[in-house]
Amino acid sequence: MSLKPYFRKVHYYETDQMGIVHHSNYIRWFEEARADFMEQLAFPYTKVIAAGVDFPLLGASCEYKSMARFGESVLIFSSFPELTETRITVGYRILDAASGDLRAAGQTRHCYYDNGRKRPVSLKKVLPELYELFYAEHHEEQAGMKS
Amino acid sequence: MSLKPYFRKVHYYETDQMGIVHHSNYIRWFEEARADFMEQLAFPYTKVIAAGVDFPLLGASCEYKSMARFGESVLIFSSFPELTETRITVGYRILDAASGDLRAAGQTRHCYYDNGRKRPVSLKKVLPELYELFYAEHHEEQAGMKS
Amino acid sequence: MSLKPYFRKVHYYETDQMGIVHHSNYIRWFEEARADFMEQLAFPYTKVIAAGVDFPLLGASCEYKSMARFGESVLIFSSFPELTETRITVGYRILDAASGDLRAAGQTRHCYYDNGRKRPVSLKKVLPELYELFYAEHHEEQAGMKS
Amino acid sequence: MSLKPYFRKVHYYETDQMGIVHHSNYIRWFEEARADFMEQLAFPYTKVIAAGVDFPLLGASCEYKSMARFGESVLIFSSFPELTETRITVGYRILDAASGDLRAAGQTRHCYYDNGRKRPVSLKKVLPELYELFYAEHHEEQAGMKS
Repeated sequence: MSLKPYFRKVHYYETDQMGIVHHSNYIRWFEEARADFMEQLAFPYTKVIAAGVDFPLLGASCEYKSMARFGESVLIFSSFPELTETRITVGYRILDAASGDLRAAGQTRHCYYDNGRKRPVSLKKVLPELYELFYAEHHEEQAGMKS
Repeated sequence: MSLKPYFRKVHYYETDQMGIVHHSNYIRWFEEARADFMEQLAFPYTKVIAAGVDFPLLGASCEYKSMARFGESVLIFSSFPELTETRITVGYRILDAASGDLRAAGQTRHCYYDNGRKRPVSLKKVLPELYELFYAEHHEEQAGMKS
Repeated sequence: MSLKPYFRKVHYYETDQMGIVHHSNYIRWFEEARADFMEQLAFPYTKVIAAGVDFPLLGASCEYKSMARFGESVLIFSSFPELTETRITVGYRILDAASGDLRAAGQTRHCYYDNGRKRPVSLKKVLPELYELFYAEHHEEQAGMKS
Repeated sequence: MSLKPYFRKVHYYETDQMGIVHHSNYIRWFEEARADFMEQLAFPYTKVIAAGVDFPLLGASCEYKSMARFGESVLIFSSFPELTETRITVGYRILDAASGDLRAAGQTRHCYYDNGRKRPVSLKKVLPELYELFYAEHHEEQAGMKS
């Protein structure tokens, strides 16, 4: 399916004394974007948690390109550049909602973790339906890149 | 015993575009001050949690008197104006560490909650040792006020 | 006019280890609700700032009634219980968007501050149009309460 | 000189419903560590700001190795892997203060920005004293690695 970008207004409390959004908030916005595409996939993250699974972070990175300010809004485009049965990498591009200017781009890498057994698991085994949803997105992107 | 104030430097990310510490952070500093006096009482909050108890908030209030800025530090003085077997009110005064100027003053009200039985409990029954510690502080303050 | 409540999803990063939204976030949500009704009044807060004015907090309070969790959404209803030429009190009621259960209720008190002259000012003098908008809301509420 | 690691207790409000410190906070801890080594270098960041300069982020990354929890403390070791007249990369290693276990490792990349002229500048030109301090740390590390 075609995922829609996540729309987000900047909150005043997210600014710092430089007058711009503090850089740590972009990492939080990435998380919001993940929650949003899970809802779009009709598999909200609460359903993952209810199955005893979490997607803990292995790593995160962000490149800051221009500065978001209070009064502005952003659109966050998520992508799925890497997917295996045990790990997923999510990519993000944060654009100003009015001008389309790139504010930031980043990635988060996650494993799938079984809270009951306290160890990483194969998403394909524990939540095959969700794995298929991710795979479809990932595959669609890869196919699109090749064409 | 005589509790020492909690010393805290202002962090850059706590400022907002007005160039001052965002007001929501004072509520977080109150929590830090609570964790600090629990340690001073030799009953760290982790010990409360390990006993299956939490101190959820019933209410919080803060009066903002002057503005804290990055580069400054504060001292937070905690007090125990109200204490019953089922509830506690903690008072806070946040002073600039250099000038002694009052930055803010506030209160938080808590009940004691049993996580296993999912209901409020008497601290005197579930953690009598801690209740005695709180009572000693509360009593000392009340006595001091009267003298 | 009739202000609409502010709709807000709970973000995962707003939860704490108790599994609920950390209480400090409600103070931030109040601020979001203020930004939202300013937009509804067609006088966004950026316009206030552009006029060299801020609404610094004099005080804030919140009563916590029940617990919001990740996966839920809230509706925040703002009101204007007190208004003078130099100060405003905003009231908030946070309801679960699905059940209507009251999560929290609170208030923030603000003065109007002239950033250029570095002192409190009369909103009626510096931004009369906005004062009239606030007054209309305040008056409508007071009238409604009496009827 | 030999910089000391930055000591930091975990705050309760930094945890999330997984029971661990939310990953976004590590990015904030990096900033605290920067403020700390600036103080150790006797050139606090407020002095940088007073000179009309900022160190905006170009990029940040963090690898999460194990989970920090409330009740624990961390030590943050900063390093200076890359330094030019116009840019600096700061490295961080976050260790549990009790066990020495690696919690996370990351980097932030910064340029030097002149707030008056609104453009990147050479630190060597605008704050030569600070550049020398950074250079001494960077050089000491590089020399140490080679020996």
